[in-house]
Amino acid sequence: MQKLAQGIARKAGMVPGTVVHVGDLDRHPVRVTMIEYDAEQAVERDIVDVSECAERHGRGVCWINVEGVHDPRLIEQIGSQFRLHPLLLEDVANTEQRPKLEDYGEHLYIILRMLYERPVPDADDGAVEIDSEQVSIILGSNWVITFLEDPGDVFDPVRQRLRENRGRVRKHGADYLAYALMDVIVDNYFTVLERFGDLAEDLEQEAMAHPTSRTLQEIQDIKRAMIQVRRAIWPLRDVVNVMLRGGSPLIKKATLVYLRDAYDHVVRVVDIVETYREMVGGLMDIYLTNVSNRMNEVMKVLTVIATIFIPLTFIAGVYGMNFDNMPELHWEHGYWYVWGVMIAVGVLLLALFRRKRWL
Amino acid sequence: MQKLAQGIARKAGMVPGTVVHVGDLDRHPVRVTMIEYDAEQAVERDIVDVSECAERHGRGVCWINVEGVHDPRLIEQIGSQFRLHPLLLEDVANTEQRPKLEDYGEHLYIILRMLYERPVPDADDGAVEIDSEQVSIILGSNWVITFLEDPGDVFDPVRQRLRENRGRVRKHGADYLAYALMDVIVDNYFTVLERFGDLAEDLEQEAMAHPTSRTLQEIQDIKRAMIQVRRAIWPLRDVVNVMLRGGSPLIKKATLVYLRDAYDHVVRVVDIVETYREMVGGLMDIYLTNVSNRMNEVMKVLTVIATIFIPLTFIAGVYGMNFDNMPELHWEHGYWYVWGVMIAVGVLLLALFRRKRWL
Amino acid sequence: MQKLAQGIARKAGMVPGTVVHVGDLDRHPVRVTMIEYDAEQAVERDIVDVSECAERHGRGVCWINVEGVHDPRLIEQIGSQFRLHPLLLEDVANTEQRPKLEDYGEHLYIILRMLYERPVPDADDGAVEIDSEQVSIILGSNWVITFLEDPGDVFDPVRQRLRENRGRVRKHGADYLAYALMDVIVDNYFTVLERFGDLAEDLEQEAMAHPTSRTLQEIQDIKRAMIQVRRAIWPLRDVVNVMLRGGSPLIKKATLVYLRDAYDHVVRVVDIVETYREMVGGLMDIYLTNVSNRMNEVMKVLTVIATIFIPLTFIAGVYGMNFDNMPELHWEHGYWYVWGVMIAVGVLLLALFRRKRWL
Amino acid sequence: MQKLAQGIARKAGMVPGTVVHVGDLDRHPVRVTMIEYDAEQAVERDIVDVSECAERHGRGVCWINVEGVHDPRLIEQIGSQFRLHPLLLEDVANTEQRPKLEDYGEHLYIILRMLYERPVPDADDGAVEIDSEQVSIILGSNWVITFLEDPGDVFDPVRQRLRENRGRVRKHGADYLAYALMDVIVDNYFTVLERFGDLAEDLEQEAMAHPTSRTLQEIQDIKRAMIQVRRAIWPLRDVVNVMLRGGSPLIKKATLVYLRDAYDHVVRVVDIVETYREMVGGLMDIYLTNVSNRMNEVMKVLTVIATIFIPLTFIAGVYGMNFDNMPELHWEHGYWYVWGVMIAVGVLLLALFRRKRWL
Amino acid sequence: MQKLAQGIARKAGMVPGTVVHVGDLDRHPVRVTMIEYDAEQAVERDIVDVSECAERHGRGVCWINVEGVHDPRLIEQIGSQFRLHPLLLEDVANTEQRPKLEDYGEHLYIILRMLYERPVPDADDGAVEIDSEQVSIILGSNWVITFLEDPGDVFDPVRQRLRENRGRVRKHGADYLAYALMDVIVDNYFTVLERFGDLAEDLEQEAMAHPTSRTLQEIQDIKRAMIQVRRAIWPLRDVVNVMLRGGSPLIKKATLVYLRDAYDHVVRVVDIVETYREMVGGLMDIYLTNVSNRMNEVMKVLTVIATIFIPLTFIAGVYGMNFDNMPELHWEHGYWYVWGVMIAVGVLLLALFRRKRWL
Repeated sequence: MQKLAQGIARKAGMVPGTVVHVGDLDRHPVRVTMIEYDAEQAVERDIVDVSECAERHGRGVCWINVEGVHDPRLIEQIGSQFRLHPLLLEDVANTEQRPKLEDYGEHLYIILRMLYERPVPDADDGAVEIDSEQVSIILGSNWVITFLEDPGDVFDPVRQRLRENRGRVRKHGADYLAYALMDVIVDNYFTVLERFGDLAEDLEQEAMAHPTSRTLQEIQDIKRAMIQVRRAIWPLRDVVNVMLRGGSPLIKKATLVYLRDAYDHVVRVVDIVETYREMVGGLMDIYLTNVSNRMNEVMKVLTVIATIFIPLTFIAGVYGMNFDNMPELHWEHGYWYVWGVMIAVGVLLLALFRRKRWL
Repeated sequence: MQKLAQGIARKAGMVPGTVVHVGDLDRHPVRVTMIEYDAEQAVERDIVDVSECAERHGRGVCWINVEGVHDPRLIEQIGSQFRLHPLLLEDVANTEQRPKLEDYGEHLYIILRMLYERPVPDADDGAVEIDSEQVSIILGSNWVITFLEDPGDVFDPVRQRLRENRGRVRKHGADYLAYALMDVIVDNYFTVLERFGDLAEDLEQEAMAHPTSRTLQEIQDIKRAMIQVRRAIWPLRDVVNVMLRGGSPLIKKATLVYLRDAYDHVVRVVDIVETYREMVGGLMDIYLTNVSNRMNEVMKVLTVIATIFIPLTFIAGVYGMNFDNMPELHWEHGYWYVWGVMIAVGVLLLALFRRKRWL
Repeated sequence: MQKLAQGIARKAGMVPGTVVHVGDLDRHPVRVTMIEYDAEQAVERDIVDVSECAERHGRGVCWINVEGVHDPRLIEQIGSQFRLHPLLLEDVANTEQRPKLEDYGEHLYIILRMLYERPVPDADDGAVEIDSEQVSIILGSNWVITFLEDPGDVFDPVRQRLRENRGRVRKHGADYLAYALMDVIVDNYFTVLERFGDLAEDLEQEAMAHPTSRTLQEIQDIKRAMIQVRRAIWPLRDVVNVMLRGGSPLIKKATLVYLRDAYDHVVRVVDIVETYREMVGGLMDIYLTNVSNRMNEVMKVLTVIATIFIPLTFIAGVYGMNFDNMPELHWEHGYWYVWGVMIAVGVLLLALFRRKRWL
Repeated sequence: MQKLAQGIARKAGMVPGTVVHVGDLDRHPVRVTMIEYDAEQAVERDIVDVSECAERHGRGVCWINVEGVHDPRLIEQIGSQFRLHPLLLEDVANTEQRPKLEDYGEHLYIILRMLYERPVPDADDGAVEIDSEQVSIILGSNWVITFLEDPGDVFDPVRQRLRENRGRVRKHGADYLAYALMDVIVDNYFTVLERFGDLAEDLEQEAMAHPTSRTLQEIQDIKRAMIQVRRAIWPLRDVVNVMLRGGSPLIKKATLVYLRDAYDHVVRVVDIVETYREMVGGLMDIYLTNVSNRMNEVMKVLTVIATIFIPLTFIAGVYGMNFDNMPELHWEHGYWYVWGVMIAVGVLLLALFRRKRWL
Repeated sequence: MQKLAQGIARKAGMVPGTVVHVGDLDRHPVRVTMIEYDAEQAVERDIVDVSECAERHGRGVCWINVEGVHDPRLIEQIGSQFRLHPLLLEDVANTEQRPKLEDYGEHLYIILRMLYERPVPDADDGAVEIDSEQVSIILGSNWVITFLEDPGDVFDPVRQRLRENRGRVRKHGADYLAYALMDVIVDNYFTVLERFGDLAEDLEQEAMAHPTSRTLQEIQDIKRAMIQVRRAIWPLRDVVNVMLRGGSPLIKKATLVYLRDAYDHVVRVVDIVETYREMVGGLMDIYLTNVSNRMNEVMKVLTVIATIFIPLTFIAGVYGMNFDNMPELHWEHGYWYVWGVMIAVGVLLLALFRRKRWL
């Protein structure tokens, strides 16, 4: 059982708005990159000192991507540069958030969770587990800041489109960029869910064909992963819906049609998640039924064997009695007759059980 | 477990609005037909070049039917001809959509799913499975464009009515045609659900009378098919409701009463689906109960047999003892007496078990 | 499993608004009766030709009752006489509708389902099943038309009140008559549900005291009947609510208080149905628990018997061994001693099992 | 299974608004009492003739309490005296109502259900069951009429406060009195629910420690009682909420704060009922699990006994064979050796089973 | 089963607004402390006589903390000092309330439940249970009064911030203080839920690895605790939401952004509670499945042992028969041959069972 409440507890009792990294305490150097673009060009560079962000060339859109949220000082510097609210900064650093949208007037703050697969730490059979990473998107008038927990992201297709001026991204404003980033994250859910489908299918085969107690563990694992995925995706529907209907001046009318499309995608993802949940819920039934059927089969066969031999043993017992006067004992072929009777009884019982389909 | 997320995943990372066929990759030549009609006449023809669509005779309604959505170029041509939004075209080609209605101002975009049965690929017992196909209906001011995934559809009754001027279809505008097309798709659901009812009835009989592990598989199959059907039909209620209340100028007031009727049909379909779902949900219980009752019967009978012979074997064992002084052994008819006792004990136990209804 | 979708499927592909009888195809002559009444008098007569309906005497209310909806021609005649919409007539003839209310401006169309019991076709033990019949009530300015599927109805109390001028029905208009007819149908639900209560009580007793596999079948039957009843009653709540709040000019203010009472009754019926559903849902648990308890009892007794005799058989086996040197065999009363030991062991085990309440 | 629909069925087909007592047909003389009070004094008297109600002294509040609703004539007299609607009177006499609030303009009609315990009719072990009684409160401008089914009520605290001028009741109007009466009924729910908690606790102990088939019956009983209680309490939330927000001029603003408190109490009662329902729902699981665990324990012990003796019997069987050449039989201490082997095998198996915790 | 309704029942029949302590009747001296602060300073003192509260220095905010609600006289004194409504005071003393917010115009009354762990009374294995304590927060124009049930609270971080002027608390008004107090209570939920997660994880391990009947008891305990926690937390969402949107003039606009953050935290707590509930709900399934799997394993092994020896015993029985003419008995090595056959049969059966994975 995952310790859902773990991170927050560490923070209990602090002044609200304190920027404390609540999340896995892995340390990697924080990398900050900045892309400035307009319809004509796109300029990319690495940022060493946050104050460089202010040096803007031209009037295009500026996208600052921060990979790592474990450096409170850096987050606070960016915050003061762009006049972000302390509570917003606190949420950026606290990586156990649910997806949400907050309208701070001059900027919108969007939290999403990116799903990805990673190898199970102590497994050597290539098993993967699904984990999620918090992505913060802050949308200003002509800038977007994104915070990721770890280096490596799913934003490369957007970067490519910016560099190569494919699609509409260079022609639209910051709101379209925010949409495009959300869109690639949502599209990535489909990829992860497809993996899920494969896992669930394999598991169902296993539960049907040869259920073991490992199967039970795996069903529990997939159920829990499903709960995780659902927690990460479900609130996103409201987020996109509020963006669509919230009427923030930061989102231009031309972008609404794209957001509506994104909303549609989120609804489908939620729909798929619910369907998988229902299917995964049924796995336990299949497992239990098959384990029980299998067990019953075994017990039946064993009991049939015992049931056939018990009457035969009785017959042998009868002729093991020591009465003075047991005529059969003195018949010349009595012994063979008894064998005959015993074989006949055995065959008869077997035939009976077979006819009743007990074997 | 069906790979619900499969198609979309292939698309992840593309520019939104890119027309890519996401669906089964079967290739058949795309056929485009066009019917132009007004109250006086109806003219049908095959379209080879999409630009022909523009050559309209008279001021009647024009219905263009495209069978196949795997040719992005063709879809884009039609799109530019009728000024359709790129996101709409993307949805046409992406055949894993849920039913939805989108109002693009100058045209309405309606997605439905048509249900049909098809033989199970690798089955030789005439088994059929239920599949669904995406139908896109685009309703303009005086034209309707429909996109189907595969050749062959349920629209023939509408075509007949257009040709023979039966019913009201020739007298009304494009909105009535769109309604009529939706209506035949919804009516078709009843046909498919009736098949479902037969399948479920047979399955219940089987689960009651002679449940096998194949029954379990079949119950799983019908459950999953039910989920599929529900996913295809459930959102349709909202679609028709929004058409009714959305107040689009494309839908004339005279058509509303028909749409209300269509809404009514959809509500009934949903109601039937829910009832079947409840009934199919009960199948598993019936199956488990019957398997368990059957197993219990078998074990009881076997145990009764063993229980009758164990005391008899004990009696035989007693007279197999080798004590010097066992008077019964030397009685003249001792052997027969023992037989008598053993038969009496056996009959008594049998009678007892029968009276207690254990046999 | 009932073929819920059956009737409609037969209709798929027809022109909307085509009057086709979709329902059981029983043929009996259609009887049409007409009652005209005002505060002074009530005149009843049988209608042979529908055009007679137009010959109205005075300015009172006119109630036309049609018993049978399998004659499309007759329905269409009535339709043209009273200017009813083709879709309304289609719904009258199609007897698989859910309760609904449709406001056609000049008239209201109300569909209810009447519940009644009838003997199970192939049963000889007096078993009854619950079936439902569609009742269409069309309320005009000063007329009411009712369509029933079969002759015989629950409207007699209303007829009596009309004839004998009891209650308020003669003093009010057509809307009160429609209310009165709905009220007797709803009151009838209580009678049917009372029967249901008796059936369920008997079934619970049976499941508690001596569950058989017939009990399982009966539980399934009552569950399914419950689903049927629920489908027939549940949507009625909305129907009456819409009548109350819909603001149709056909329903006078004085009638609203009665409709509110009818709404109250419907809510109680729905409440009772839900309670029964919950109780019937528990029947399966009781059945399974009792079957399993019973089975366990049997297996326990049988196993106890075997467990007592197996050690005894072992003792007998020991003294059946042929060792040269077995002193006990040569004791004078060895045989009786062994009997003593065996009886002691048997009694001890029995006492032990009894003390542990295993017997 | 309780016959929920019973009472109403008896009434089916009557003229709406007919006052017929639908409920238990117990006959006791109906007692009518009247308390008139204002801030100065409170006068109590028994009413023999309903017309006395009109003889009001002063301008205070008048509370008429009627104990018994099986005298339709009396109810109708009161009705005409206070100009109550026939449908209201019908509801007063029909004691199977759900809690509801009806606004008749000049008066409010409130139905509540009072819960009380009573000894189970045919039980001699002091068992009690929970029953409910309908309480009708009619609130006029300066009068309150209450109808109870049976003599004896929970209103005594209110009467005491009226007599002794404790609390605020004498200082406020009729609406506060109605609130005070509702408040004592709701407070009484807590008492009844506390008894419920004790019963459920005892039952859980029983299901945990020594489940019998009587436990199963009792769990069913408490489940059903819970359904009853829920039916009686659940709709009350809406009733009080409508009183709070309904804006009836009969309820003065000063009383609203008390009604809000009453609403709060009702919400807590509903919350407790839901929690108990959840807990009672879990009782069945505990029962089944314990019965099954217990059974398994028994079968395991019995099977272990059999399993130990079967190999021993085999050994004895071996040395009961009659081969000419069986050297062991002729060893001097062969018999004792075999005993040794048999004891060793038995002890070994026992130790093995114990180590595996099978015993 | 906890007696949820217990406390209230003791109060039934009292005048509404009577201040009676309903809760655990533990008696400790009630301690009252007061902190007065503004941006410049914070003065703390112990209050002996409630009238001291009126002696305010300066115009800052005043926070009065009362530890203990079992002294009705004291509560009434505070009530009259601050003009609190009697129903409010009644709720303060009655410690079985659900979280709620009541707007009394001049002050807001907020009830929360603080969760804490405490050692199980009669347990010696360091077991803890989760209990909850009612916290009343009354927010006036420039004062806050808090009532706790017991000495010791989670407010120390806020006190520290007041003393040391850390964070924003000294700079804002009474509404921010109320928010800060709520915030530490909510943060404390995360700590408690983290403990919960650990317990549930341990329990799952136990249910997976070695389920005992104590595990069952513990699962029941954690389920019940979960219900408790849920009851304590769930209504808080509405409370904070109403504070956010209620538009009370007591809550300044600057505080709203903090309340929105608090709301967010509450939503996450509720989300975690729901997720744990789902996971805890699955524990029972895991327990039952593992108990049953374990049991099945045992029975299978035992049955396999019996099944192997029963045929062997039969063979021994055959050669224990006393026929005159049994050639095998006279073979020189007959005895050894039989041993050979018996060992072969045993090994064969064992191998067969192993191959079929029954052992």
